[in-house]
Amino acid sequence: MTTIVLIGSGNVATHLFKVFSASESIKIIQVVGRNERTLERFEGAEAMSTDFNGIKDADIYIIAVSDDSILSVSQHLSDKNGLIVHTSGSKTIDELSSHARRGVFYPLQTFSHFREIDFKKVPICLEARQESDFNLLQNLASQISDKVYEVSSDQRRSLHLSAVFVNNFTNHLIHIGNRICLENSLPFEMLQPLLQETVSKLNEISPYDSQTGPARRGDLKTMQNQMDQLKNRDDQEIYRVLSRSIQKTYGKKL
Amino acid sequence: MTTIVLIGSGNVATHLFKVFSASESIKIIQVVGRNERTLERFEGAEAMSTDFNGIKDADIYIIAVSDDSILSVSQHLSDKNGLIVHTSGSKTIDELSSHARRGVFYPLQTFSHFREIDFKKVPICLEARQESDFNLLQNLASQISDKVYEVSSDQRRSLHLSAVFVNNFTNHLIHIGNRICLENSLPFEMLQPLLQETVSKLNEISPYDSQTGPARRGDLKTMQNQMDQLKNRDDQEIYRVLSRSIQKTYGKKL
Repeated sequence: MTTIVLIGSGNVATHLFKVFSASESIKIIQVVGRNERTLERFEGAEAMSTDFNGIKDADIYIIAVSDDSILSVSQHLSDKNGLIVHTSGSKTIDELSSHARRGVFYPLQTFSHFREIDFKKVPICLEARQESDFNLLQNLASQISDKVYEVSSDQRRSLHLSAVFVNNFTNHLIHIGNRICLENSLPFEMLQPLLQETVSKLNEISPYDSQTGPARRGDLKTMQNQMDQLKNRDDQEIYRVLSRSIQKTYGKKL
Repeated sequence: MTTIVLIGSGNVATHLFKVFSASESIKIIQVVGRNERTLERFEGAEAMSTDFNGIKDADIYIIAVSDDSILSVSQHLSDKNGLIVHTSGSKTIDELSSHARRGVFYPLQTFSHFREIDFKKVPICLEARQESDFNLLQNLASQISDKVYEVSSDQRRSLHLSAVFVNNFTNHLIHIGNRICLENSLPFEMLQPLLQETVSKLNEISPYDSQTGPARRGDLKTMQNQMDQLKNRDDQEIYRVLSRSIQKTYGKKL
């Protein structure tokens, strides 16, 4: 039985709480957060607290708070002997440098409070300073996921950057596509099958090989027409910058 | 029984051929293409031809060729009485203006020769000049898809533009994400669950509400760090332009 104190009450903490609670070999002995209201999400938690001075002893302390709060939160744990990890994609392991037993437990997924997540498929990226601590994390992670990786702080930073492209930026482009549809009385559901296929295709071929469209073909006339269709300058700039990058990627003359 | 002559031998033509062939009330009486090699894809077609002068009489002629060839191909059909349609997202119905009975049959999907497509879910966007022709197209489209829409040329142009954002541009961002992973010895499969969830989430909430990440939060420090991480200037410009657009969308100060 691995005992855990979970610190934080946001989406990552909520999802970790749910999945750990469902495991018989993991016991969350305490959830600690500053926000009493969001602590209500942790139904059935045996101990919830907003008191950082009353933190219990556990095998692992998981700090699932915003990047800028990790350091200050970790300082409340200076007298603890357990392993202390954060869940951040962009902070290095040394954000916890005042603790000899430190590590990272980074689930690479976008978490929303209203969505169920199949944790078995979520890549868990682990890092620790000591082999015994790494083994402890690996044992914990493999209870909830089939995809456990050892990932260094540098690699994780790249992974997080990559996730910004793959999730945040693509989502914004979908938002723009949606906006263009709505402005023309077209329902967004018309785009859903295309969107689904865009992603499903990538189970079989690489995004490099998957590319189609005017920029890939070097079809300057269509590109110019579409630029003219766009009404706002930010959309035009996005169109221009991405088309140019696609053209360069496939060796089309600019 | 609706008889069809299919003109073209690319991915759209191939997929239409497959799905029409599976329907008992549709009969493809001829496939016409310039490229003898790609015509080999049309296994079991009763008549294949590279001769544009020997085109048979049919109820509907479907011109599924590249945008720039639609006009010249349609000129081979000047003596035909059937309904003549193209499958282009960006060309108006009047690309076929020399034909009184003209229309558009635009399946909104990305087609690859190696992927099976569930046509039932593919939105088919129809346009015709005459109501009887529209009904003919609607009857044809509803044989293969549950998602049939009447879409004007202007709307279709917007839909096609939207598809460039939702498919071509997102795919390119995924390519960049993939490249960043590979440069750091991280397998692309690590990003697949994130990618899948990015899209699946949009069945429940809008892309506007779905946005997360440093730009949405206005987290300037992370944005600056990530810009510094990017090695090439095109990637940096994409990061800058998209982050700025996200910040503006959510009213963050720049």
